[in-house]
Amino acid sequence: MAQRYVRVQSQTGQLHYGLLRADRSVQVLDAPPWLQGQPTAMELSPESYGLLAPCAPSKVVAVGKNYPDHAAEMGTTTPPEPLLFIKPSTTVIASGAPIYYPAQSTQVDYEGELAVVIGDRCTHVPKEAARAKIWGYTIANDITARDLQNHDSQWTRAKGFDTFCPLGPWIVREISPDARLQTFINNQTIPVQSASIETMTYGPDYLVAYISAIMTLLPGDIILTGTPAGVGPLSVGDQVRVEIEGIGGLTNSVALRPQSES
Amino acid sequence: MAQRYVRVQSQTGQLHYGLLRADRSVQVLDAPPWLQGQPTAMELSPESYGLLAPCAPSKVVAVGKNYPDHAAEMGTTTPPEPLLFIKPSTTVIASGAPIYYPAQSTQVDYEGELAVVIGDRCTHVPKEAARAKIWGYTIANDITARDLQNHDSQWTRAKGFDTFCPLGPWIVREISPDARLQTFINNQTIPVQSASIETMTYGPDYLVAYISAIMTLLPGDIILTGTPAGVGPLSVGDQVRVEIEGIGGLTNSVALRPQSES
Repeated sequence: MAQRYVRVQSQTGQLHYGLLRADRSVQVLDAPPWLQGQPTAMELSPESYGLLAPCAPSKVVAVGKNYPDHAAEMGTTTPPEPLLFIKPSTTVIASGAPIYYPAQSTQVDYEGELAVVIGDRCTHVPKEAARAKIWGYTIANDITARDLQNHDSQWTRAKGFDTFCPLGPWIVREISPDARLQTFINNQTIPVQSASIETMTYGPDYLVAYISAIMTLLPGDIILTGTPAGVGPLSVGDQVRVEIEGIGGLTNSVALRPQSES
Repeated sequence: MAQRYVRVQSQTGQLHYGLLRADRSVQVLDAPPWLQGQPTAMELSPESYGLLAPCAPSKVVAVGKNYPDHAAEMGTTTPPEPLLFIKPSTTVIASGAPIYYPAQSTQVDYEGELAVVIGDRCTHVPKEAARAKIWGYTIANDITARDLQNHDSQWTRAKGFDTFCPLGPWIVREISPDARLQTFINNQTIPVQSASIETMTYGPDYLVAYISAIMTLLPGDIILTGTPAGVGPLSVGDQVRVEIEGIGGLTNSVALRPQSES
């Protein structure tokens, strides 16, 4: 099995990057792995930590309509250049954390996506050099208030609510170029989304080059590579699981925000 | 004169928050002032530091078409709700730093704006409680590649280039509600923008409430409150200065990015 890189919170509240072992214990690293973090003697047993999103990005740059089948279901076509938007870092949550259904919306959709983790500072990186700047891959769910997306000219609100970017559960270094992405609702066996990531229009290397010619990407930053066809609404109480072959599964349930959290 | 809060880099490369004295020396604080930073015995003489943007926001949330006269010059009207977009933190530069003219654009505009500095974590803050969450005010220039803004459905590229958010030069705690904002090009004495900030449609308190009902605002985050009428293009070599009464002036020149910076 490929090495899995995690970020966890210990019982004392400390944050650590680490390596996830087959028995679910975590060997702690002394820094993020993309900043040359090395294994320490510290080990956390499975019951002694909580899984966090596997990185803490300074920004999440997302790409719209990057699968032709999804562009078609939205009544449009793939744009001639990558269509970029930004999800604030406050959207990011771990696998297992609740997605809060906002009061401002009546249609909140899942969008399963491959997430690219940047390993190195990227400014004007040529496409041929982009692969070396990608540290690894994880899974994301680009939660979208579809009614607000259709209403607002800019997607910042529709895509930017707290908890609207489940990310994880861990990072792997490599992924097969034709890995399958599948999304499942409420443990149903038939996926609502199922596509090979090779059907995306602009691949990871192209996106690193394109984006880094606009804005500098920093280590730990995330690129969301777009969602394939099959997006649909979630209700409070639903569970959504995005799986990518060779990585694993990202599972989150939808809840109302507790009144006490403000 | 109101106390001015700065962020500086010393000759040894260290970053400090500090208080700017009338003689331009800086009394160093032991933390950002909004995190209860206290004065230390360390003092930096005027020639021993470089001015940085006065905070390092995790996000810059900006508001489009928030002055009716600017909405009108763009051929539109003030939207029924604040129109939000995000500038990545990699856009932020200090007063005095160069704005790099990107190769992808042939029309780069200035937009002088009042910037609100958040002092406290904000989630679902009622408008009546918003004032206490605002730590202070500074000046911003929401540089925009107008041709790309008109071309792209999302403004992320047009507003998101590195160096496209000059911010500073410092933060003050209070501002007059009818302070005048003026923008000057190349030391001309007649401003290209001149408006009272009280003519903005959605004021700072309203914006803190509106935005924090979507995304959590963190200490040091920035809200750009929109630009008044008079926006226009910049050329390489131009100098642009945005002044706000009671704060000061934010001055930047436009340059081509050195080929060595990648």
